[in-house]
Amino acid sequence: MTTKMYQEASASATHVAIQLAADADRYEALGVALRASPPTGVVTIARGSSDHAASYFAYLVMSRTGQLVTSMPMSLMTLYRAPVAHSRILAVSVSQSGRSPDLVGPMQAFTDAGATTVALVNVEDSPLAEAVGWTLPLHAGPEKSVAATKSYICSLVAAARLAATWGQHADLLQGLKTLPAALTAACTMDWSAALPALKDADRLLVIGRGPGLAIANEAALKFKETCGIQAEAFSGAEVQHGPMALVDTGYPMLIFALRGPAQAGSIQLARDMRQRGANVWLAAPGDVAERDLTLATTDAEDLDPIAAIQSFYLLVEAVARARGVNPDSPRHLSKVTSTL
Amino acid sequence: MTTKMYQEASASATHVAIQLAADADRYEALGVALRASPPTGVVTIARGSSDHAASYFAYLVMSRTGQLVTSMPMSLMTLYRAPVAHSRILAVSVSQSGRSPDLVGPMQAFTDAGATTVALVNVEDSPLAEAVGWTLPLHAGPEKSVAATKSYICSLVAAARLAATWGQHADLLQGLKTLPAALTAACTMDWSAALPALKDADRLLVIGRGPGLAIANEAALKFKETCGIQAEAFSGAEVQHGPMALVDTGYPMLIFALRGPAQAGSIQLARDMRQRGANVWLAAPGDVAERDLTLATTDAEDLDPIAAIQSFYLLVEAVARARGVNPDSPRHLSKVTSTL
Repeated sequence: MTTKMYQEASASATHVAIQLAADADRYEALGVALRASPPTGVVTIARGSSDHAASYFAYLVMSRTGQLVTSMPMSLMTLYRAPVAHSRILAVSVSQSGRSPDLVGPMQAFTDAGATTVALVNVEDSPLAEAVGWTLPLHAGPEKSVAATKSYICSLVAAARLAATWGQHADLLQGLKTLPAALTAACTMDWSAALPALKDADRLLVIGRGPGLAIANEAALKFKETCGIQAEAFSGAEVQHGPMALVDTGYPMLIFALRGPAQAGSIQLARDMRQRGANVWLAAPGDVAERDLTLATTDAEDLDPIAAIQSFYLLVEAVARARGVNPDSPRHLSKVTSTL
Repeated sequence: MTTKMYQEASASATHVAIQLAADADRYEALGVALRASPPTGVVTIARGSSDHAASYFAYLVMSRTGQLVTSMPMSLMTLYRAPVAHSRILAVSVSQSGRSPDLVGPMQAFTDAGATTVALVNVEDSPLAEAVGWTLPLHAGPEKSVAATKSYICSLVAAARLAATWGQHADLLQGLKTLPAALTAACTMDWSAALPALKDADRLLVIGRGPGLAIANEAALKFKETCGIQAEAFSGAEVQHGPMALVDTGYPMLIFALRGPAQAGSIQLARDMRQRGANVWLAAPGDVAERDLTLATTDAEDLDPIAAIQSFYLLVEAVARARGVNPDSPRHLSKVTSTL
């Protein structure tokens, strides 16, 4: 019997195809509106996996247009009553359930202030969808596993679509068309070589950079919630400020060396860490000879993180089972959290 | 024989007093300039401990004025060549040495674009100081220990001064005057009760919220670099999305419940975690009966994080020694890192 997490993660390509076939007019209209009246500031509001999708959106926007994006701590609005909301802001929220009050409240405040408010949300008739001007449905279908997988992948896709339609980035728009096939290919990558080492790990570092940091953060979170492994993500640069002190002989590190300007540095970091005796798992595309795990590529470099996390999800689900943990029901976790 | 880390951490109050006595005109002139020509966007650029000081600055500015602040991944400029720099930006960098090329390059680019550029930097004749329009010296004196302590505290103070003079926040300006005395008091807090538990910990969560998240992140980094403990910081809200799966019976958690709007939630979180069997260390001011560790307070609520990290530094130095580690020379770390 397969787990819900496995079933849901494996269904990502299907749901991405459904999403890509829907709402084109809505994305286009939002893109037109944003270009007609460019926001003076952009904020993202999200937690957990959804916040990692938000950071992917932020990286795409900032790297391509220079438009600054601020990841907003919700406590600024829910507890500190900061006067952040005004009409020239674009506020983008990301959520599977659309029900967390600490997300809905701030987004409603932005809407009330006349801001352009967007929800990348899976549950379309949720309070979050009602609180915003623009709902961009994830189309991930019902998600039963506590650990988000297909909804996270669909939120990355929605983030890329929003960045692409706003900035009219032809490479992204083109690459999105073939993304379902790339995700299907990513599901066939055999990462089982990493299983024996990860089965017994209790601490771990995950490294990513550029738009790949978003999925390194997501991978670290999944190691925690499904396996009880204390995994933390760092950029390939940041890890050298302090966290390196953890890296002892045999210390496990998962390094994502995605295509793009950050790839060479990530491969070099893997070499350096091996030299120090770390137990490095280098995930890189097929043309990187020294890789341990093969990354599927997509038709646009900046979409590669989406295929990478797809392969990772199947690995981490297998790691959880190998540890005797049911990844569908992690300890102490529920699907919707309500904090203020 | 005391360690350099102990000596330097203990000298923070002295250096803060030196800083507060210096450069008042420069802060004031910068405040005048920023009010005369408000920036359309604010970015911070920093790594490691310095980045935690930058996030403290961001929280103070955003919570009080609503002005958005973006923590900029340096790779955006060094690797992805993002067109971020323009003349209406305020770019604030934080660094002890002022020598990391990945910091100097982006700041020079902002200066070249006509942006208002600021360096909170300890070494005044550093390349970073030369690359910016406004140097705000930390006055922390030479720092020999690899683990930053007094320079971090001085960078928090410089961050508060910049936020205070820009926004003309009377409570901060007033509270800063007596901060050296508060830091001296913070050095006398006896946190040794936490030593036996932390001596044998290999994993840990540190919780903070609001402006206190900046010091929770700093505490987690110090646990890593001086003790080899894999500690990670989360906001009291974020921890409930996934990381909670780590919290088993006896799992150690350090929770900062600083004064302010986030305090009640932090105390409640401590109760919930104790209920689950976690080994909670609740750091709170003297009026919180259920505290385990007493936080010194300052004359302005938003400055309390500075006193809190002062007490923590003396604890973590003692934890390192109790573990048989020399906190002055952590493994694999050097004082200046050079990454691109």
